Amino acid sequence: MAALSMLPGMAAAGQQPGMAGAATVERQVAQPKWEGPPRLKFGVIGINHGHIMGMSDAVMRGGGELAWVYAREPELVKQFTERYPGVKVARSEAEVLDDASVKLVLSAAIPDERGPIGIRVMKAGKDYIADKPGITSLAQLAEVRKVQAETKRIYSIAYSERFENRATVKAGELVKAGAIGKVLQTIGTGPHRAGYKGRPEWFFDVARYGGILVDIASHQADQFLYFTGSTKAEVVASQAGNVHTPQYPKFQDFGDMMLRGNGGTGYVRVDWFTPDGLPTWGDGRLVILGTEGFIEIRKNVDIAGRPGGSHLFLSDQKETKYIDTTNVELPYGRQIVSDVLDRTDTAMPQAHCFLAMQLVLEAQAKAQSPVMKG
Amino acid sequence: MAALSMLPGMAAAGQQPGMAGAATVERQVAQPKWEGPPRLKFGVIGINHGHIMGMSDAVMRGGGELAWVYAREPELVKQFTERYPGVKVARSEAEVLDDASVKLVLSAAIPDERGPIGIRVMKAGKDYIADKPGITSLAQLAEVRKVQAETKRIYSIAYSERFENRATVKAGELVKAGAIGKVLQTIGTGPHRAGYKGRPEWFFDVARYGGILVDIASHQADQFLYFTGSTKAEVVASQAGNVHTPQYPKFQDFGDMMLRGNGGTGYVRVDWFTPDGLPTWGDGRLVILGTEGFIEIRKNVDIAGRPGGSHLFLSDQKETKYIDTTNVELPYGRQIVSDVLDRTDTAMPQAHCFLAMQLVLEAQAKAQSPVMKG
Repeated sequence: MAALSMLPGMAAAGQQPGMAGAATVERQVAQPKWEGPPRLKFGVIGINHGHIMGMSDAVMRGGGELAWVYAREPELVKQFTERYPGVKVARSEAEVLDDASVKLVLSAAIPDERGPIGIRVMKAGKDYIADKPGITSLAQLAEVRKVQAETKRIYSIAYSERFENRATVKAGELVKAGAIGKVLQTIGTGPHRAGYKGRPEWFFDVARYGGILVDIASHQADQFLYFTGSTKAEVVASQAGNVHTPQYPKFQDFGDMMLRGNGGTGYVRVDWFTPDGLPTWGDGRLVILGTEGFIEIRKNVDIAGRPGGSHLFLSDQKETKYIDTTNVELPYGRQIVSDVLDRTDTAMPQAHCFLAMQLVLEAQAKAQSPVMKG
Repeated sequence: MAALSMLPGMAAAGQQPGMAGAATVERQVAQPKWEGPPRLKFGVIGINHGHIMGMSDAVMRGGGELAWVYAREPELVKQFTERYPGVKVARSEAEVLDDASVKLVLSAAIPDERGPIGIRVMKAGKDYIADKPGITSLAQLAEVRKVQAETKRIYSIAYSERFENRATVKAGELVKAGAIGKVLQTIGTGPHRAGYKGRPEWFFDVARYGGILVDIASHQADQFLYFTGSTKAEVVASQAGNVHTPQYPKFQDFGDMMLRGNGGTGYVRVDWFTPDGLPTWGDGRLVILGTEGFIEIRKNVDIAGRPGGSHLFLSDQKETKYIDTTNVELPYGRQIVSDVLDRTDTAMPQAHCFLAMQLVLEAQAKAQSPVMKG
């Protein structure tokens, strides 16, 4: 079970084995590698989700050197070291935390362990990047916020649907430049392929992954805050539940939420119903409505259209056009490494990182059933 | 003012003068004309919105003969008779209602007059088709329901974004045939171009047009009920307000709502922010999520893509493909004429027609402000 558990993670990251076409949807455009000597050493603690590879790659592109990996599961460590042959395998978490040369730790442990690991990392004087969801309960969030404020360490969450998607990065530049005026609303949809047979047990346990809004919709909450420029926000309404997966009664297969921030409004829908005929794991979209135009991002696939991923469409007061994002840099890795070295806050403001999780944790806590009563 | 007031209506129907390309987006594929003698005579009372032309055309395609038109505004009557030279101009509403040979009356009067006209039409023993919104208050809805039940007449509302859109009609066939399994959710977006300068006064007065959710989102409420197969539904949350049109403080430029029905859930967003660079009045979309696949409809335009309108995409367990809807018949006109003659309920169940309006009237009544406080 443990040996298989990274594979569905790889699928969720667009790297499903046996689906080579889909596997390269987002990765097909190589990002430039770091030139010159590494800028810092980083370690990895917990590799239960395949996202850890995209996260490690991003930090390496930003000048990081992968020094250590620690995980409880030998099968997962074996897969990881095959992909990263230079990494040292630690015998314990402490061995990573005790290495003073390690400045940054990454984790894609089982979701409910990510917060506690991050707290120990910060208390050990190091910075931290968690896979999303980076926190799975409001109690964890409070503790993480407290320790972060005390230690002044970085607690980042790799919202990969923004940081690792060229069209979304480009949209950020366009919106900042005023291309669509003031942003009024975002609609983010994150459908996912379930692949239930290859999933580990924790995948089905809300207590461990936090629920569908926490798990998946943290991406969309991040993008809502980012594109509306909201620094305060609230949940207007939310739903989450199991509408069509009776074989896993504790699993949540559908969720949605309406959001309202001080910079605009938002809607998010997430689900696990991607059909097998889609050539990637999910037709993720983001529509950004502005006062002077709108942007649509087709993140992973342009259905029955252009090849590849990261599709960006802009309609403004002058024209409607497709924007090629092939040569857009993904800056998160470079920025977070600089933040660690320079004690800056450029990759993602710390308050934003926490507010995105707060929104989905609150949405999850107050979620109604999507199934109508009576 | 009155002379101009039909033009923006024409724009909203995709027929804006001076935008020939946009004008033909949906109309470019000719629907077959009625062959043979007319099946019934119909009259028109109230032509304040250009939708009346699409409605009249649909009924004529279904075998109706346009006998009468009545309107208070001579300028609008002049435009109408230029388009339909054979129509007789009535001197009063009563002249239409008193003609026993007229079986059906259509109206695109100012929205708050459509309900009262329909009540008089039904009491005169005739059937009725209102432009949407067909009812602008919950009190009107109660009275319309009562009179409809007493008279057993048809009170139909021309939800043109379904009835007059080939891709949406085709999607109905696909869903009915089980192409995407059980429908779980619909997301409908209805952005519109404002064209404020050419609009009549009633366009800006919530009391007359009912508010943005009633006015525009009745389309999406209809489609939510239709595609989820819901016969009961409730509003989970709704927002409506003026977020960026300070020059018309009473106008509502943005609205959205979450819906839950006994057949699935829905989300709707409507707005008046279509930019001038879009080659049509609005990039209306409908995404239908099913247990075995999903459908996307790009109703009026495939941005930076294929020409024309009525674009249909299907992703199922086998493949992802574009479906050509060029030769799809729009059956509403034929069906409603048959319903009038045969006393059947095939074009749209009466209960469905009212429930769609009930949903948006309730959403409008409980709508929160989209602007965050504090």
